[in-house]
Amino acid sequence: MTDQSNTPEAMNGAESLVHTLVDAGVDTCFSNPGTSEMHFVAALDHIPGMRSVLTLQEGVATGAADGFYRMAGKPACTLLHLGPGLANGLSNLHNAKKAGSGVLNIVGEHAPSHIELDAPLTSDIQGIARPVSHWVHTSTSAADVAADAAEAVKAANTAPGQVATLILPSDTAWTPGGVVAAPLPPAELPMFNREALDTATAALDGPESLLLLGGDALTESNLEAAGRIAAQTGCKLLSEWSNAKLERGAGRVSIGRVPYPIDYALKTLAPFKRIVLVGARAPIGFFAYPGKPAVLTRDGAEITTLAEATTDLSAALGALVTSTGAINTAPAHVAEARLPERPSGKLDPGTIAALIGRAIPENAIVVDEAITTGRAFFPDTAGAPKHTWLNNCGGSIGYGMPVAIGAAVACPDRKVLGLIGDGSAMYTVQALWTMARENLDITILIFANRTYQILRGELTNVGVGNPGPRAIDMLSLDRPALDWVQMAQSMGVDAVRVEDCEGLEEAMEAGLAASSPRLIQVDL
Amino acid sequence: MTDQSNTPEAMNGAESLVHTLVDAGVDTCFSNPGTSEMHFVAALDHIPGMRSVLTLQEGVATGAADGFYRMAGKPACTLLHLGPGLANGLSNLHNAKKAGSGVLNIVGEHAPSHIELDAPLTSDIQGIARPVSHWVHTSTSAADVAADAAEAVKAANTAPGQVATLILPSDTAWTPGGVVAAPLPPAELPMFNREALDTATAALDGPESLLLLGGDALTESNLEAAGRIAAQTGCKLLSEWSNAKLERGAGRVSIGRVPYPIDYALKTLAPFKRIVLVGARAPIGFFAYPGKPAVLTRDGAEITTLAEATTDLSAALGALVTSTGAINTAPAHVAEARLPERPSGKLDPGTIAALIGRAIPENAIVVDEAITTGRAFFPDTAGAPKHTWLNNCGGSIGYGMPVAIGAAVACPDRKVLGLIGDGSAMYTVQALWTMARENLDITILIFANRTYQILRGELTNVGVGNPGPRAIDMLSLDRPALDWVQMAQSMGVDAVRVEDCEGLEEAMEAGLAASSPRLIQVDL
Repeated sequence: MTDQSNTPEAMNGAESLVHTLVDAGVDTCFSNPGTSEMHFVAALDHIPGMRSVLTLQEGVATGAADGFYRMAGKPACTLLHLGPGLANGLSNLHNAKKAGSGVLNIVGEHAPSHIELDAPLTSDIQGIARPVSHWVHTSTSAADVAADAAEAVKAANTAPGQVATLILPSDTAWTPGGVVAAPLPPAELPMFNREALDTATAALDGPESLLLLGGDALTESNLEAAGRIAAQTGCKLLSEWSNAKLERGAGRVSIGRVPYPIDYALKTLAPFKRIVLVGARAPIGFFAYPGKPAVLTRDGAEITTLAEATTDLSAALGALVTSTGAINTAPAHVAEARLPERPSGKLDPGTIAALIGRAIPENAIVVDEAITTGRAFFPDTAGAPKHTWLNNCGGSIGYGMPVAIGAAVACPDRKVLGLIGDGSAMYTVQALWTMARENLDITILIFANRTYQILRGELTNVGVGNPGPRAIDMLSLDRPALDWVQMAQSMGVDAVRVEDCEGLEEAMEAGLAASSPRLIQVDL
Repeated sequence: MTDQSNTPEAMNGAESLVHTLVDAGVDTCFSNPGTSEMHFVAALDHIPGMRSVLTLQEGVATGAADGFYRMAGKPACTLLHLGPGLANGLSNLHNAKKAGSGVLNIVGEHAPSHIELDAPLTSDIQGIARPVSHWVHTSTSAADVAADAAEAVKAANTAPGQVATLILPSDTAWTPGGVVAAPLPPAELPMFNREALDTATAALDGPESLLLLGGDALTESNLEAAGRIAAQTGCKLLSEWSNAKLERGAGRVSIGRVPYPIDYALKTLAPFKRIVLVGARAPIGFFAYPGKPAVLTRDGAEITTLAEATTDLSAALGALVTSTGAINTAPAHVAEARLPERPSGKLDPGTIAALIGRAIPENAIVVDEAITTGRAFFPDTAGAPKHTWLNNCGGSIGYGMPVAIGAAVACPDRKVLGLIGDGSAMYTVQALWTMARENLDITILIFANRTYQILRGELTNVGVGNPGPRAIDMLSLDRPALDWVQMAQSMGVDAVRVEDCEGLEEAMEAGLAASSPRLIQVDL
C-alpha cells in the first residue's frame, strides 16, 4: 500500500482519522500499538502534524495524556492495542477521569468477522472502557471513522475534560472510503448555579465560613478573585486535597489543602459552619475507617454548591466578587517571595521540603506523588517563584512519572520536577525510558523510604494497632532494596543517589540546570 | 484490634475469609494491597497457612496466579486494591482466562456508605472485573464473606479453570460476625461429546486427517493416548499455537503447534480434509488481515468437535483409543533423547534454539514469551529431557516473567527457564523484584533485539509494504537501548550480558546451576 492520502477517494479510515484529529487540534499521540493498529502507525508515518511518543507500557501512555491535558488545555490521543492494551492503561485513565482531564483513546479492535471467532486477543473492549470513560463508541465503517473521531474530540474537550474512547475495528482502518471530518464546535460551558448566589454570598462571612475551591477555580486569576472575596468577607480559603492543577508561588493567592490524614482533616474543617463550593465537592475521607465519619465537615455545617466542576467557574467567582462587594478589594493571602532557611545534614520530610522550596525555578511544573514524604512540602514551597502544582486526583498510584512526561511534552519551555515515592514510582517505572527517548526536561526525586509507608499508617487507622511481622513484611520494599540509580540508567536516564541535604541540593541544581531527564534517589 | 480469631463470635469477615480459603486449599496469595485491604493483611499476619507474595505492580500478581494454577493445578488468590488495582492486573487476567487458569481475585472495595460519596478511588469494580472474569460477586456482610469465598474457590476450580473475582467492601472485612465456610464439592467435569465419537473415529484415517489437541489433552498420559491413535490411524497430531501447559521432551509423544505466521499456518493446515478437536478450537488466525482468511483450515475441511476444553479430555482420548482399536498399539512420534549440535559464534534464533535445546534440565518448566526469536525453538528442544512448556494463550504480552514467578512458587523443586523478548519483558518488568525477594529458582533469557520485531512483520501482513522512518521508529526500542543487566541488578537479580554462543552457554549453565534468580541479556 502506497501513500494514497492525496487521492481522497482512496483514503482509508486510518488516514481520515489522522487528518481529522490534526485538524481538530489533536497533535500528540502517546502510543503503544499492536497489529490491529498498524494502519494508524502507517498513517501517522506519512501524514504530518502529529507527534508520536512511544511508551513501553500503556499506563505510561494514558498517564502522559492526563498530564498533557492539564498543561496544554487540550487532549492528546493514545493509541492502544485492543482490550488488553486499554486494560494496562486503565488505572491512569481512572486518575485522568477524576482529575477532569480530557483524553482521547484510540483502541484497535479485530474486524467483526474475526471477533466472532473469539481469537486469543478478543475481549469486551467497550466493557473494559466504560468504567473509566465518559464516552465510548465503536466505529462501524471506514466512512464513519472521521466523524466519530470529531465527536470523540468534542467529548474529550467537554468541561472540565472527559475520557473518550474510540474503538476502531481493523477493517475500518484499512478499508478505503475515509472522509475527513471538520472539527465540531465545542460544547457550551454550563452556567454555575445562579440560584445559589444569594445564599453563597450570605454564607461567606467571617472565619467560620469557608470558600472551598477545586478544578479551574485554581487558576491564577480565579485565585485572585477568591483572595478578594476572602479579604472582603473574612472567609477562609481551602482547596481539595488533590488538585489537577494549582497555580501558586510568590505573588499569587496562596491556598492550603484539606489534609489527607483523616484526623487532621476533621480538625482543619471543624471551625466551619458555612461552606461554599466552587469547583470542589463537599470534603469526604479518601477511605472509610471504622468508627470515623465519612463526611469531614462539622455536624450541621451548611454547604452551598455555587458551582460544580463542570460549569463556568470564572463566572461563578466573578459573580461572587461582585455580590460580596469585593471588586475593589485587594486580595488576601498573597504569597510573598520567601525561601526557607538552608537546611543541612540529615534528610527528612522537613529538610527535603526546605530544599525543594529553595530549588523550584520560575515557571516550574511540580508533579507531586510523594504520598507520605510530601505532606510537609506545601508550606515551605508557598513562597517559591511562580509554579504549577499537580496532584493525583484518582488515588491510583503510579500517576506521577507518566504525568510528568505529558507535562514536559506540553510545555517544552518549562522545567518539570517530579516528587515521587519509591512505591508509587514502581507501578509505571517504564516511564523513565520514554523520558530518555524524548529527552524531556524532567528532574525526578525518588523518595526511597523502602516501604508502602502510607499503609503503615492506614493499618492503624483501620484499627490494626499492633501489626505482626508478616503484615509489616507485606508493606516493606526493603528486601531487596531498589537501586534507583541503576534502574534509571538501565533506561537511559542519568541518575544520582543522595544521602544528605548537601547532596540533594547539589543534585537538584544539576538536574534543573540540565535540559535532559535526571533522577535523584533520595535516601530516607 | 488483637487476634480474636480463636473466639469465633468475634471473628471478623477478613479472618473468616482467610480460614475458609486455607481450608479449601488456597494456600498462596499474590498481593499488592492498599488501605481497603488492611484487614486482610492483618488476618494473613496471624492466621497460618497462607504464603503471601508481594508484588510491586498488580499485573505481576495476576500473571503469577496464572502460572501457579498451570503448575499447581489449583488456584492461588490475588489481593488487589479497589478498581484501579484490579485494572492494573486485568491484562494478565485476560491471559489467564484464555489459558483456562483458575484465579481467585480478592478485591477490596469501599464500604457502601463511602461509595455513595464518590471518593477518589471509587470506581465500578464489577464493571472492570466482568470482561476478564467468569464469576463476579460483591459480598454484602461479614457473615456472608466466607460462604461467598467458598463459592469463588469452586468457580475458580471449574474446568479447565476460571477467573473468579470476589469484591469485599471494607466493612465486611472489619465487622465481627464472620463464619468460616466449609469447602464446596467441586463442579462435576462434563462428559465429552459422545455423539461425535463415531464421526471422529471415522475421520481419523491417514495423513489427510488431523487430531488437534489443546488444554488438558497435552498431559503426558493424554499425549501418549494421542500417539497410539496416530500410530493406529495414520492421522497427524498438532496442538494449538498457544498451550497453557504442554508436557514434552525425550520419551514423551512429541507434538508440533499450528504456526503463528498466517501464511505458514495456512500451508501447515492445507493437507487436512478431516480434523478432530479434543480440547482445541478450530484453527483461526491471531489477527484478521486484509485479503487473507480468518479460518485457517482448507476449504471444505470437515471439523468434528469431540471434546471442548471444559470437558473430560482424558475420557475423550481414552474413548478414541478404544474406538480406533489403538489400545495395544505403541504410540507414534515418541521423542528420542537428542541434543542439538553445539553451535558457536554468532547468536541468532537458530543457534539460540540449539543452545536452549542442550541446556534444558530434566523436569524444567519453560515459560515461552520469545515472540519472534522463539519461533525456531520447538524442533531443537523436542529431544531434551522431559520438561513442561508454557505459552501465552491470550496474546497480551507481559505474561512471561509473572507466570515464571507463579510456576516457581508452585514447584520449588523444579528449574524455571523464562524465554522472553525485550519488548514483552518491559510490560511487567517489576516481576524481577519479586523473583529476588522470594529467591525463586528462575533463569530468564531476555532476547534483546531492541524492536517490537513482530510488528515489523505485521506491518507487511496488513499491507503496509514500505514503512517510513516514523513508522519504524514507533516500533523501535533502541533509542535508548535498554540495559537489562542494570535493570535486573536494580531489583536485586544477578545478571549478565552475552554476545555469542559461548557466552550464552556459560551463562545458562551458571544460571541453571544456581538456585536463585538470574537474568541473561542475549544481544541479537
